[in-house]
This record gives sequence, C-alpha cells and structure tokens, in this order.
Amino acid sequence: MLETRLDLDRIHAARRVIDPMFLDTPMYPCDALGRRLGCTVHVKLETANPVRSFKARGTELVTSLLAGQGRTDVVCASAGNLGQALGWSGRRRGLNVTVVASRRAPVAKLDRIRALGAELELVDGDFEMARERAADIARERGIRLVEDSLDVETCEGAATIGLELAGAESTFDTVLIALGGGAMATGVGYVLKSLLPGVEVICVQPVGAPAMTRSWHERRVITTESTDTIADGVAGRYPIPAVLDDLLAVADDAVLVHESSIIAGMRMLLEDTGLVIEPSAALGVAAVLEDRDRFAGRHVVTVLCGGNVDLDAYQRWVRR
Amino acid sequence: MLETRLDLDRIHAARRVIDPMFLDTPMYPCDALGRRLGCTVHVKLETANPVRSFKARGTELVTSLLAGQGRTDVVCASAGNLGQALGWSGRRRGLNVTVVASRRAPVAKLDRIRALGAELELVDGDFEMARERAADIARERGIRLVEDSLDVETCEGAATIGLELAGAESTFDTVLIALGGGAMATGVGYVLKSLLPGVEVICVQPVGAPAMTRSWHERRVITTESTDTIADGVAGRYPIPAVLDDLLAVADDAVLVHESSIIAGMRMLLEDTGLVIEPSAALGVAAVLEDRDRFAGRHVVTVLCGGNVDLDAYQRWVRR
Repeated sequence: MLETRLDLDRIHAARRVIDPMFLDTPMYPCDALGRRLGCTVHVKLETANPVRSFKARGTELVTSLLAGQGRTDVVCASAGNLGQALGWSGRRRGLNVTVVASRRAPVAKLDRIRALGAELELVDGDFEMARERAADIARERGIRLVEDSLDVETCEGAATIGLELAGAESTFDTVLIALGGGAMATGVGYVLKSLLPGVEVICVQPVGAPAMTRSWHERRVITTESTDTIADGVAGRYPIPAVLDDLLAVADDAVLVHESSIIAGMRMLLEDTGLVIEPSAALGVAAVLEDRDRFAGRHVVTVLCGGNVDLDAYQRWVRR
Repeated sequence: MLETRLDLDRIHAARRVIDPMFLDTPMYPCDALGRRLGCTVHVKLETANPVRSFKARGTELVTSLLAGQGRTDVVCASAGNLGQALGWSGRRRGLNVTVVASRRAPVAKLDRIRALGAELELVDGDFEMARERAADIARERGIRLVEDSLDVETCEGAATIGLELAGAESTFDTVLIALGGGAMATGVGYVLKSLLPGVEVICVQPVGAPAMTRSWHERRVITTESTDTIADGVAGRYPIPAVLDDLLAVADDAVLVHESSIIAGMRMLLEDTGLVIEPSAALGVAAVLEDRDRFAGRHVVTVLCGGNVDLDAYQRWVRR
C-alpha cells in the first residue's frame, strides 16, 4: 500500500469529469527514434489538444469542483501551460480566470493565455515570484488559488495518464516523466506503482533546475537560488513538502540532464516523429541520450507533456 | 439509400480489425486558426501514429484479409504514405511487402518505407508510372496488388474516420477532405452522408493535380497529361471510374486550390496548432483561405491526413 495523497478510485472517477478531448491521447511506437536511442520507444502524446499540454486533465477537475461550489473566480501562477489549461477549463464553466506568470515566459504561452480570455498579470521575477503574487491576489480578492502539484486535483488529473499507460497493450518496462512541481510525476508514478509495480518510474529534470531532483535524492526539501534552463515548464525552485513525500513513495529514480541533451531530444523528436514539442517534453529522450547503457534494450515510454514553444526559439534550437 | 460500393456494417466491422493505435484519433477545436479563417475549426489529426497518415486504417484491413487467405506477398504503388502503411501492417502479419514509388517522391517517405522492411522499387516517372509497374510486378510474380481507392478495403479503412466524426460531440456543418485517388473522400463522405446527411462534404484538390475534381464536375473520367503540385500525396492523373461513381454519390462539392494557399495553410497549422503536416493535409485550410465568404461563420472539420514531409522542403515552405 503506497502512502500518498493519491487514491485510485478518485483517479478513475476523474476520467468521468475531464472532457474526453483530453483523455486517451495517442500512444505509439517510434521505431526510428528507438533505433537511434538503442531501445524500444513509445511516445505518449499530450500535445494534440487545444491547450497543447496535459495540464487540462487537472484543470478540468479543479474547475468542475469550483463551479459545483458556486465559485466565480480563480487564480493561479503558471509557467505557461497551467494558465492556458485553467483558462480553457474555466471559460467552459463560466469562471473568471486570473493567471500570474513571469514576464520571461515564452511569448506563445502568454499570448495563448490571453486568447483564452484569462486575465494575465506578469511579474518581473521567475515562476516562484509569480506563485507569491498569485497567493497575494487570492488573499486580496478572497478567491480560490489553484496551486499546481499541491492541489491534489492537479495530480489526479495527471494521474489519468497513468491509467492510460497501465491499460495500454504494449508491455513497457520504464516510464520517463518530466519533473517540475511534481504533479505529473507523482500522479503517473502513483498509478504505475499501484497497477504495474514492475515498471521503473524515472523522473527527469534539467541540471539547470534541479531542486526537486536534489530533494528526492536527499529526502528533504532543497531549494535553489535560481534556475537556468530552456525547459521553462519545469523550472521551479521551491519544492512543496507534501509533493516531495509523494514523489519519494512512487519514483524509482530522478535524474538530471543537460541543455544540450534536451535540444538533441527535441531535434530527434522532430526528425523521427514529426512532432514539435517544448523543451520539457524532451526530457525523457534527453535522459536516454545521457545514459545509453542504462536503457540499452529496454522498452521505455516517454510522456510528451507539452508543445507550447516560441517557434523562433524552437527553430534556433533544432537547426543543425 | 446511397448507391456506392461501401457498406456501413462492413465499416463498423473494420474497427474491430484495425489496430486501435490507428483509431479514435484526436479531434479538437483550434480557436486561433478559426479566428484567422473566420469560422469555427476542428482538426481531425491522422498524423500521430507510426506511419504518420490515415492510410494504415486501410492497410490493416487489406493485410488482415491476405493473411487470412494464407497469402505471403503483396505489392502496391504508392505516393509514399500507402507504402509505409502497407509496410507497417504487412510486417505485423508476416507478409513480404513490395512498394513501387516515383523516384521524385519525398525522400522522407521513401526512407521510411525501407525502414519498415518493405522492398522498395523506384520508377523514373510519376505515381501513375508506379501504378503500372506495380501491376506488372503483381502479374509477373502472381502476387496480390493493392490498389488504393479501387480496393474497397482502402475506402472502408478511411471510412472509419467518418464513423469517428459522426460520433463526435461537436456539431459541425462542413467537412473538408483532401482528394487524391478518392479512398478518403468516398469513405468519409459515405459515412457522413449516411449518418449526418446535413453535413456538407467538400473535397479539395490542388489546381496542379485536378483530374478527380474535374471528373467529379463533368461526371465522367477526365485524365491529365501531368501534375504540378507540392501536395505529392494527391497527385494522380487517372481517376478510377468506380471511385468516381462513389464520389459522385457522396460529395457535395470538389474544389481546387493554389499552391500558395496550401503553403499558407501549412504555415497557419504550424503557427496556430504546432502541427507539422504535409501539403495534402493543408488542402482543407487552403480551401477556406480561397473562399472565405463561403465558410464565414460555419463550423468546419478539416482532416489532417498526413505528416510525412521532407523537413528541408517544409522549412522552405513555411519560412516567412
């Protein structure tokens, strides 16, 4: 019995609340990519939806709950993807959505948050500064603050990916999950450890944003002064204790990868699968690139968690 | 009662034969694209699978049938996508697959056909020359020739897209379908006209490869001397009479679009949805671009039928 904040029955129930558009996403083998990586590779594609990331799985739950409680307003901090997802789910349920983001977030993400009708407030600092400002707004206005990874619905939403992996026909032995705040890693990890305990759950974070990975290895919260990575979606500095506890219960490993590997991963995914993904979604491929021996001959699934990227930056990264 | 070679019961049955990996593909609204086009737009995404096109829906049926008959060899002509799909489906069922293609087909398509283990023979002429050569091979070796659009299984496979459209929650009024040999247009069109007769089925072909569209308008087979389009997937010159008959029964219109519109469509799909698609898959968006008044305020679904493209050429096309 895994001791976490997660619960299989609730995760199954979540599937009935989430718009089917965000569920049962494509999962398929990529032979060419596997040949290059020296292992069998399936991708689980979370970018083919209106918000281009898995985050709506969680915001569908959160906003459904809020609407049921008669709430009218909600605020979140976002690196860019949660804000879009909350904008989408909130609009559908008549909620006024406010998103706080860093001015340094990709323009594409900020534009799309606005386009979804959310009120966008920018802060000069990084994601952690946006988190503080969002909390202030929630207090000032007396409205609900959605906290990614801390609010269990965000983990349960992501965990529905785990149900889909566990129900897949293919028999994989490893799942590679991008690690940021931890909602996806704990959610997917919990389901896999519950239903397919033999599958290794490996979390991947950039060397330039290692707070959660270091915390996992030291089994206590480690914060960092700054972050330095193109993988903007996972660049937090203050791990949440309750999420770390869950991660300790469900992850088999947490590894760090270099920017060059993330870029190589994005390029390979474009060349071998035709998919444009954001840096965070290339973390899994990057992990294989940095430790080929470990993955040789194995059957890995890598979750392509998001595809929100500034095209100019993307072109620079993938150009040879 | 529609008089065609197609049958709803057989199309429903096809779903049980086709690998689920190729079924129930993502369908979702693209607000940003819709704003630019002046209508509501859903995309039906057929590129997120190992062969990056809808063609495996048909080859799953064909190869299942052949394997059931104890056949060991099969040959087809292909513009590039059918060959990959037949390679995939054939390999899975232990069939030796031979593909004949034009030497001018995109290198990416040819490479992937080889990578799937198919024997690839190149001809110096265009797709119609490949069709002749494939027929010769079938006769010489006494093996089964798969003929796209003529073999009803290729239409039935494509028609399963129509079932998914008809079962979708959203209420669209127009479906835009790339028109080449006619398998997709007749298959999807047949299902829609059977289940959602109020939906307008519009086929789209490049001005540079207009044979089937001209044939549809004149209600008799019109061939052309040559083709000139980047939409290699739909560049046939000799419409098949039986397929034209079906198309006459199910299509509401067939329109031609210019190369510049196809390129603009590819660029918009990249910018507004993050999807890399091949020229044939941009035909629907191109049709809206060329006749905005016709589509103003309507709710269209465009089927993104393939994503096999040479990246260098693609970059040239979409670069501003």
